[in-house]
Formats: sequence, C-alpha cells, structure tokens
Amino acid sequence: MQQAAVKKKIAILGSTGSIGTQALDVIARYPDRFEVVALAAGSRIAELAQAARSFNVPLVACANAGDLAALREALPAGTQVAHGAPGLLAVAAESGAEVVLAATDGAVAFDAVFAAVERGIRIAVANKELIVAAGELFIAAAERSGAEIIPVDSEHSAIFQCLVGEPRERIGSLILTASGGPFWAWDREAIAAASVADALRHPTWQMGTKNTVDSASLMNKGLEVIEASRLFGVPADKIDVLVHRTSVAHGFVVFTDGNVKAQLAPPDMRLPIGYALAFPDRLPDRSRIDASEALGAAAGAHGVQLAFEQPDLERFPCLGLAYEALRRGGTVPAALSAANEIAVAAFVGGKIRFGSIPAVVGAALAGTPDEPLSLASVRAADARARELARAAVEASLAVPAK
Amino acid sequence: MQQAAVKKKIAILGSTGSIGTQALDVIARYPDRFEVVALAAGSRIAELAQAARSFNVPLVACANAGDLAALREALPAGTQVAHGAPGLLAVAAESGAEVVLAATDGAVAFDAVFAAVERGIRIAVANKELIVAAGELFIAAAERSGAEIIPVDSEHSAIFQCLVGEPRERIGSLILTASGGPFWAWDREAIAAASVADALRHPTWQMGTKNTVDSASLMNKGLEVIEASRLFGVPADKIDVLVHRTSVAHGFVVFTDGNVKAQLAPPDMRLPIGYALAFPDRLPDRSRIDASEALGAAAGAHGVQLAFEQPDLERFPCLGLAYEALRRGGTVPAALSAANEIAVAAFVGGKIRFGSIPAVVGAALAGTPDEPLSLASVRAADARARELARAAVEASLAVPAK
Repeated sequence: MQQAAVKKKIAILGSTGSIGTQALDVIARYPDRFEVVALAAGSRIAELAQAARSFNVPLVACANAGDLAALREALPAGTQVAHGAPGLLAVAAESGAEVVLAATDGAVAFDAVFAAVERGIRIAVANKELIVAAGELFIAAAERSGAEIIPVDSEHSAIFQCLVGEPRERIGSLILTASGGPFWAWDREAIAAASVADALRHPTWQMGTKNTVDSASLMNKGLEVIEASRLFGVPADKIDVLVHRTSVAHGFVVFTDGNVKAQLAPPDMRLPIGYALAFPDRLPDRSRIDASEALGAAAGAHGVQLAFEQPDLERFPCLGLAYEALRRGGTVPAALSAANEIAVAAFVGGKIRFGSIPAVVGAALAGTPDEPLSLASVRAADARARELARAAVEASLAVPAK
Repeated sequence: MQQAAVKKKIAILGSTGSIGTQALDVIARYPDRFEVVALAAGSRIAELAQAARSFNVPLVACANAGDLAALREALPAGTQVAHGAPGLLAVAAESGAEVVLAATDGAVAFDAVFAAVERGIRIAVANKELIVAAGELFIAAAERSGAEIIPVDSEHSAIFQCLVGEPRERIGSLILTASGGPFWAWDREAIAAASVADALRHPTWQMGTKNTVDSASLMNKGLEVIEASRLFGVPADKIDVLVHRTSVAHGFVVFTDGNVKAQLAPPDMRLPIGYALAFPDRLPDRSRIDASEALGAAAGAHGVQLAFEQPDLERFPCLGLAYEALRRGGTVPAALSAANEIAVAAFVGGKIRFGSIPAVVGAALAGTPDEPLSLASVRAADARARELARAAVEASLAVPAK
C-alpha cells in the first residue's frame, strides 16, 4: 500500500454546510492521509463542536461572538477558539493548513481566502461567489504566490481533471453539462408560473434551496460559465453548455487538435471533494469499478446512454444574462450574482413569479456601469445590484400578476 | 503564435501505408514544427520516392534490394538509400529522429524499433503485433532507456490522453470502446456464414482488409485489450470492452476514486497520429470547435447520443480468446496474433467460413505451451502458431461445410 508518509493538513471554511460535511465524510475515511487543523462555521455550532472533537481539531472559529461561550464549553480544554473575520483569517491562513477548503457561501470569507492564497496555500474552492465576483483578482493572486486553485464544483472539477498535464494554450473550447433542471421539458408559460415546490424538484443533485432554484432557471449554469472562464482563462465565446439530463458527464475540454476529453462520475459531491483534497494523487477507494457502474448505468440495464442537447436561451434567459455579464466583465458578474440572490429570495418568499427572476436580474445589470475590478468595486457593485434588484422586485409587485 | 523554435525530427517506418501516409498529411500541415529525417517502406516505391522528394528526406529505405535502383533514380542525388533490415535500422535508430513512427505491419521492424527504444528515442507506435507479441519486452526496454512510448491506435491514444498527468497506480480499470463491426446485430448462424464482402462493411472506420475482418470478429478489440494491458501495465481483469456503435468515444479510464475520464474524437486517424507526433504539446489546428461537432453530431441534429453496451462473447468468441491469451501471457498473445493472420487469410481466400476463425485460432492456442517471453521465443511461437493454424484450416477443409 502506498500511503502518504505525512498527513495533509486541511482547514475547512464552512464546515457545517453541505460541502463541508461531505468533506469531513471523505477525510474520516482516510485518517492516515488527512489531518483537520482548523474548522470554521457560521451556524450549527453544536455540529461544529462535534466535528472538532471527532477530528481533534486544534483551532475552531464561529461567526458570532454570541456563540463563543457555547462553542468553548463543547470543546476540549486547549482548543483555540476564535470568531468573526479574525477567526476566518486564523483558520484559512494561520492554522498551518496545506489545503483550505473554501466552502462558505457569499462574500463572508473573501478576505480570509485571499490571505491564504497570498501565502501560497492551496485552495479547494467551492465558494461560487468568490470566483464569479472576484475570480480575476483571485486567480491573479494565486499566480503571484504560486498557490494552486482546485475547483470543487463537479463541472469545474471535471474540466480541471481533463486539463491535468495538458497545455492550457491548446484549449479550443470548454463544455459544461447541465441537468436542465425540473423545467427542461416545460413550456415558457408553465416555467414563468412555476411554484417554489416545482423549482425544488431537481432531477439529479441534492442541493440547498438557492442552488436548486438556480438550477431550475439555469442561472446556476450561467454562474458556472463565469467561473469556468475565470478558473481556466477561457473567454465566453469558447465556453459551451450542453444539457445532459442524467448528470453522468460533467464537463468536456475540446482541444485545438480536435481531440476531446471528458470527465464522468456519479452525482456525488464526495468525488470532486476527494479529488480536490487528494490532488495531485487520487484516493484509492476501490480497486475495481465495473464499466457500467462507472458510467452511471443501473445494474442489469441493457446499456449506458449518454444524451446531450443544446440549451434553450428563450426559455432559460438567465443563462444568456450570465454570458452577457461575463462578456461585459468588471463588476458585472458580481452584480449578476448579487441581484440573482435577491431575485431568488423574492421568488422563494412568494413575492415574484419564477418567470420574473430574469427581469429582476436584468434590471440590476442594466444599472451596473462598466468599471474596473477591485475587491472594493466588487463590494460596491454587489450592494448596488441588491438595491437595484430589490427595487425591481418592488416594481413588479406593483404590477398585478398575469 | 507559439511555434517550436526547432523542428521535431520524425522518422517513419511504413511510410506508404495507411498510417504512414496520414502522418505525412499531418506533417505537411506543420512544416514549421516537423522535419522528416527518414522514411522506410516495403512497397509502393514510387510513392515512397515522391514523399521523400516532397519532404526533402535525406535517408530513405526500401525492403527489397530489387527496388534500390528504381528508388535511387527517383530521388535527388545525395539522398542516402538503404534496404532490408539494415535500412530499417538506419531509419529508426541512426537517422537522428527524435520520434519514430512505427507503422509497419507484422514483425518486420521489431529489431529496428527495439534499437531505437534502446537509444531512448520516442516511439509513436502503430505496429500492433509489436505490442501484442512483444509488448512486455518493448515496454521494459523503454523503461530502461527512458524512451517514451506514445500509442497511435485511437483507443490507446484515448487511454494515454486520459492518463496524462495522472498517477498510474490509481487506475481502477480501463474501458476500450468497440464499434461492434458489421455483425453486431446479426445472430450467430448468420455471422458464421458471413461473406468476405459482408465482413468488409465496417460501420465507422476505413481500414485495410485484415483490420476490417478483425473488427467484424472483434479480434481487433481483443488484440487491443492485450495492447492496453502491455502499454499501461493493467491486468486483463481490469480491462473492459464496451460496444459503442458510433465510434465517438474511444476509451475511458476509471480511477480508484470513482472519477472517470474519457477521450472522444471523430473517427479520423490523423487526430491520434497528430497527438503522438506533437506530444506533450497538441497541434493548434483550430481555435474553436463547436460542441456538437466535437462530439460527433451531424450538423443540425437534435443532439448528441452516446450509447454503450456490453459485448457478446457468445457471438464473438475471438474477444474471449484474446482475454485467454492475455491471461496466459508469455508467447500466447504472439500465437494468437499469428494464428489469427492465417485464419483471416483463409477466410478472405475462401477456404474457411467466418465462423471458423475462432476454431482455427483456438487450435493454435491449444498447441502453444506456456513459456517465458523473449524475442526468440516470440518468433518461434509465431511460426508454430501459423503451422497449427494452417493445419486447422486444412482440417476444416476436409469437413464439408454445413
């Protein structure tokens, strides 16, 4: 058995969320390979403390000072406890971690992750907003320090895996697959009037509410197109989306020589998480996996069918808005992401129809100027886009629904 | 434009065959990248001379002394001309080539290719018999000298491309795709009685007669399973075959962590040839290839469908014979390949039914002892298997056809 002589030191930002807990699942299977040196979470403090005890974690951070007492009480004496922005910074950049899993939502951990990147620490990145809003700054910082950025999202992990060992300047195009979400076969009017319950019926992946609604609108895929552009340095016109209902193939790289590479895997986030943690090695989970199982076929099925079709921007205008934001660049992707959060919350809260999400986001994009990108301009654009989106929500409330 | 400052020096063994001429097509498109330093061919001497003139090749070799005069006359003064085994050796190992494309059939170039490998020269290998019969010796020689072996066959190029940058010890299994050939949907009796014309109707690839008949029997895929085992150091029980009628996906690697990588390309041998010549770079043929084109969809089609099914060893026993030969090892794969040549020739010559090919090969395997592998034992096993196969052909002639 080949085993790492020294355990890899891992820190997790967002350890009680979906990605964080699945990462701990993976780590628990390989106690000889990984050591958890720090955990940070903003909520579910009891779970945070339990994970910290279970993995003997020396440094634990919560978001709010109000949680400190409960956290301290639940942890062994000697555990270092921190909170807020300094806590995130300590976990990401001062814990001795060799890999930081950035799995918080939103912008809360931007500064901490940037600090880690600037120190050359490898980042396994699952924080979409970080790449969408500040991806150019983030990648530039990584290039300066030499920090490796390993994507955790299944589509970007797929592209990353296809690019290992390949000359990046020979990328002809990237293809991200999309499940198509619950409304793929619906007509435009039915989509516009879809209920929250309808939007939450995702065909293949189990995710949180926001991501599931984004999958239904294909905004999720649009954000991923922006991420792919940032992560791999490929412009909008070389990134395609294909709808692939069964979510077996996650991404393709078309090289300039006409050869294509694809990555496939069952829809289980522990696979890209495990890849990001183990990179450049791979985990030795199973010595033999049958072809049909590997390609996602049900046991005993006649064969494996993989089908791909073009997305429909007429019925799914959010995807087009994301391409527009990527082409405009600057702070526009940040505005897209922020406005979409407001629009999705308004939809989930019963304030707007599903079909109004693109209009709310579009209003925010229209009000966003083309301006240079900086962490400060991103924050300002984010705030402005939220205001614009809220105003658009209020305006749509003033109009009686069809 | 990124261009190689120094042209890569290429030698081709078998330059007038299908692979050789397609390689020259690729090289002709990149005069700034490649320089042809030597060509060898056993037949089509006029074409050999024409290519040598067209590419200003300083060293040219033919098989037979009888062709020397014609060859000399057709070449510019000062061109070095050689023949026979010393000619092949000069082209492969003494021409200054950095990459030798081994594209002859059979065993004629074994010594020359071994000499090149022992000098650490990279081999782009399209000579199936070399890998099937002597693959272990060949790979061991390459490991000693540090020579890189780049497969040219589309399936092995696919696997090689999927393994670039990956830890080889994390291969869970390899999957080679098979078109299934013209008889995939036929029943056993119809296959047994198939005509030569039937066998030559290959659904996707244009190849020579021998390879096309081997595709119809799936012996071609069996030989490729053996090649994959040798090239990638993976045992028989970790190599699967899936029938994929449209020949878009050529191979998959299933890693031990559950992730799968695949390579796809249109069925055009210039793609794997170009990859092998340009490796570790890729050729910059096209800056943008649309997703549907890259995945092999007809223009305007509704989408891309990739289907995979299990092969049927009952109707295609040659595939099972190849696995048996691989499991037995030693000189048995050489015997398989040699006996199959005799059987296919007998079928094409009208001496045996298509359905008798496996019996002829099986008879040769049954008469082949388990013995250690050496270039000498391979040659002896090859000769013995041909004798056994010829005897089996004669025996079947003595039995009236059903």
